[in-house]
Amino acid sequence: MNAEIVSVGTELLLGQIIDTHAPVMARILADCGIGCTRRTTIGDNWERLVGALSESLERADVLITIGGLGPTVDDLTRDAIAAALGDELEEVPEVKEKLERFFSQRGIPWNPSIGRQAQKPTSATLIDNPNGTAPGLRCQKNGKVVIALPGPKGEFDPMAHGPVKEILSTLQGNQVIHSRTLRISGMGESQVEAVIRDLMDTESPTVAPYAHTGEVHLRLTARAESREAAARIIDPMEQAIRERLGSHVFGVDDHRLEDAVIELLEKQGATLAVSESMTGGELGARLTSVSGASKVFLGGAIAYSVAAKEDLSGVSRETVEAHGPVSEETATAMAEGIRKRLGSTYGIAITGNAGPTVDVDNKPVGLVFVAMAWEGGSYVDRSQFRGVREDIRRRASQVALGMLRNKVLEQV
Amino acid sequence: MNAEIVSVGTELLLGQIIDTHAPVMARILADCGIGCTRRTTIGDNWERLVGALSESLERADVLITIGGLGPTVDDLTRDAIAAALGDELEEVPEVKEKLERFFSQRGIPWNPSIGRQAQKPTSATLIDNPNGTAPGLRCQKNGKVVIALPGPKGEFDPMAHGPVKEILSTLQGNQVIHSRTLRISGMGESQVEAVIRDLMDTESPTVAPYAHTGEVHLRLTARAESREAAARIIDPMEQAIRERLGSHVFGVDDHRLEDAVIELLEKQGATLAVSESMTGGELGARLTSVSGASKVFLGGAIAYSVAAKEDLSGVSRETVEAHGPVSEETATAMAEGIRKRLGSTYGIAITGNAGPTVDVDNKPVGLVFVAMAWEGGSYVDRSQFRGVREDIRRRASQVALGMLRNKVLEQV
Repeated sequence: MNAEIVSVGTELLLGQIIDTHAPVMARILADCGIGCTRRTTIGDNWERLVGALSESLERADVLITIGGLGPTVDDLTRDAIAAALGDELEEVPEVKEKLERFFSQRGIPWNPSIGRQAQKPTSATLIDNPNGTAPGLRCQKNGKVVIALPGPKGEFDPMAHGPVKEILSTLQGNQVIHSRTLRISGMGESQVEAVIRDLMDTESPTVAPYAHTGEVHLRLTARAESREAAARIIDPMEQAIRERLGSHVFGVDDHRLEDAVIELLEKQGATLAVSESMTGGELGARLTSVSGASKVFLGGAIAYSVAAKEDLSGVSRETVEAHGPVSEETATAMAEGIRKRLGSTYGIAITGNAGPTVDVDNKPVGLVFVAMAWEGGSYVDRSQFRGVREDIRRRASQVALGMLRNKVLEQV
Repeated sequence: MNAEIVSVGTELLLGQIIDTHAPVMARILADCGIGCTRRTTIGDNWERLVGALSESLERADVLITIGGLGPTVDDLTRDAIAAALGDELEEVPEVKEKLERFFSQRGIPWNPSIGRQAQKPTSATLIDNPNGTAPGLRCQKNGKVVIALPGPKGEFDPMAHGPVKEILSTLQGNQVIHSRTLRISGMGESQVEAVIRDLMDTESPTVAPYAHTGEVHLRLTARAESREAAARIIDPMEQAIRERLGSHVFGVDDHRLEDAVIELLEKQGATLAVSESMTGGELGARLTSVSGASKVFLGGAIAYSVAAKEDLSGVSRETVEAHGPVSEETATAMAEGIRKRLGSTYGIAITGNAGPTVDVDNKPVGLVFVAMAWEGGSYVDRSQFRGVREDIRRRASQVALGMLRNKVLEQV
């Protein structure tokens, strides 16, 4: 059994946005034991779209489309699937009512193109889309399965990982491809590779490294008759890698560094406050992206200006004047100040110059200080990063999370 | 004249790495006036690869392949192009000598598969690759042009932007495709379309809407003999759209809502402080992602806990107790409090429940209050959003930026 993925949209085709959905879908197919043999990107053009879908249906057992289900005249996927399958379109009254309710509640006047979202090809059943107005489609005809998903990320992701994965996993009897990703911080890709090189020669599971900003991922993949059997092939390899890399492995699969930190803080029964200058709130945003962060994260200061460093983070004017806002001393005073202010177990602070130019204080682009304070102690890290503003900020928040994790690991 | 791009590699196909090269290539094609009509991703499989290349050659005038030119047995693109074109392979002695020199200097023993990189289809000329061992290919046969590029980024990028762009720009006499994107906030996609539907029927420029979280993009595209001539076709359409949508158009191309806000604040000579509960710092992170934000952005509070709302954002305990942390009153007190604390022209605050569960205060998931305060006044917005945690937070920061922009627009 093989599958093809067709991504629909002129913006995608012309490279104005990067397609991250098709890779997600390809990995889900692999998890369900269905080989993905081709991916196609096509624009919002009726003839080319119908052509691409028809060709895919000739070659593949399963066709998955992403995008083009919206309400505008550019959104052609629903109609094109019907055309490729030789189906008619029919209206689904419940969806139409739902749409009417949705738009009238928001005071948006109805227009006929909205109503297109209430149509489906005759051979289709609907896949619920709790985060948007366009439902997904599942068509079964002539031995082929067609699944259509909407393009917006907030709608695509939960549908792909939820109901669509469930449908796909029932299609292929007894072979699954299962992967597990180990997430590593505090080591670069070549360091990781040097330590585990001999383990990377195995055939099952395969071990492949991927570099990300401030972390490295190792993907372990095995094929077996069930997810459990594949997991049993992967388990000893995970164990062997963990023995070599120790606490550098901070998470598995979707478990991010911020998830690991919040979890550890909760385990310790500790609380946290932050003071951010250069990152402007990014560290706080990452921490609070974790559901339940409020149990351990109290909040903090966006200490961007000198005034905010003083008023909100308790840094004395003398410290800033003597050492400059981008300094070991100011970073430490920020961490200690915010900890005292909010009465938290830990305080963590970031100050630096993210560029693009040398700052007023004459500090080079990429110079970053991350400080941490606790009852009776503090620690400060100095880094010199390369890259653009966004990378430098991301790396700084990554250092802060890594530092927190190491400290809490000593306590729990 | 139209082109197709074929990306080759099992890792790409299975979604283990994201394809960023094909989007780069698509944009280069557009700059050279060549329409990209399809992109295909195919694995390292001989029959499927030859099939995909042959099909592309039937449909397109120009075929560009990316990847699969390396020395391993997995690298099939060179041979597959020869097969699809009906060419033989021949060895290029100069390339073979260069390879032999390269490998012997590095003490790497020669093996026959390295020698494959010295071969080329008979109809091909070589494209120099200064950063790698595999040269690129340019084949011209039966009125078709095939260009093959290597996959490693350090080799692909300079070749694509250099010699390949030069070759492509000579193919299509003197036609370029130029696009401009208008960014719109405060209206949904279907509302925008309802207002400009008649304008969307034009053929040049084409007008296509795209929905993003909390904003809509309209892409205007024209084909002409030069970038300037295309811009002259787009200008009157931009004007016509701006007349209908007014100040809802906040930016062009890469100009984000946060860029527009920082720019307007600077124009007014105003300063800003934020107080973020639910978003945990995301609004601050977005504002400070703008280079030069420090001229207008003073900082603020991540008022996640009730204690932080009181200590850092000057909200009274009575207000929180009487109305709850997720309320109009608390939002307003946060905005007024942080404005007073940092002495800024404007204060803006966000509180809400991003989910996934109904909060302690019994407020539904997605309920968000955004408040703004200034000398002698304040304003508060109540929204009920759908979607996952990440979307709700993004939409909330989007409302805050839109509110700020509207207020500052009144002043400048």
